[in-house]
Amino acid sequence: MTDGPTDPEPYYDCHVFCCVNERPDGHPRGSCSKRGSVRLRNYMKARAKELGLGRVRINQSGCLDRCELGPTVVIYPEGVWYHYETRDDVDEILQRHVIDKGRVERLMLKLED
Amino acid sequence: MTDGPTDPEPYYDCHVFCCVNERPDGHPRGSCSKRGSVRLRNYMKARAKELGLGRVRINQSGCLDRCELGPTVVIYPEGVWYHYETRDDVDEILQRHVIDKGRVERLMLKLED
Repeated sequence: MTDGPTDPEPYYDCHVFCCVNERPDGHPRGSCSKRGSVRLRNYMKARAKELGLGRVRINQSGCLDRCELGPTVVIYPEGVWYHYETRDDVDEILQRHVIDKGRVERLMLKLED
Repeated sequence: MTDGPTDPEPYYDCHVFCCVNERPDGHPRGSCSKRGSVRLRNYMKARAKELGLGRVRINQSGCLDRCELGPTVVIYPEGVWYHYETRDDVDEILQRHVIDKGRVERLMLKLED
């Protein structure tokens, strides 16, 4: 689906949603939060602010339902998903995807994942 | 920005984020949660499930930073924002936007809002 003729301009050029869902210990699917997503999201938010990125928003979200691949993040309007584990991963996503408008191929999730 | 040549197919055709941020009583900006967003989001999620909508996800999110216009919801990949207050609003957004791929003009937020 493409934008309809009456859609306003985008409010954010880059809108990042970081799953911070937490399931109880021992849940078979696990959860992004149990895999460290909260600290990763907090770091990403802080770094984006330090970098002075305009029209970029780093949000937490509820369960994105790709738990087994977590921690996961999805970036819109592109709809590109990443798995990330470290601060270096966050830095690379911010620099290469958010700032340079490229992709971090090594962290991207595929549809069939 | 358009999709790069290596982007996977979208995981969700329609990804809805409902702000459920809650600020303390008396905060000058208010918050979506204080304006009833949690029950609206829960209803939207339940209705989407009842309607059997595939490849549609209704997520809660942290603060979307358009608090004064709340409760707010943003739908990607279109990047269309709505203010909603009632179950009828939710039903209209699900039917007209999510299912029919149209827009609910009366509830849409503009960039300058």
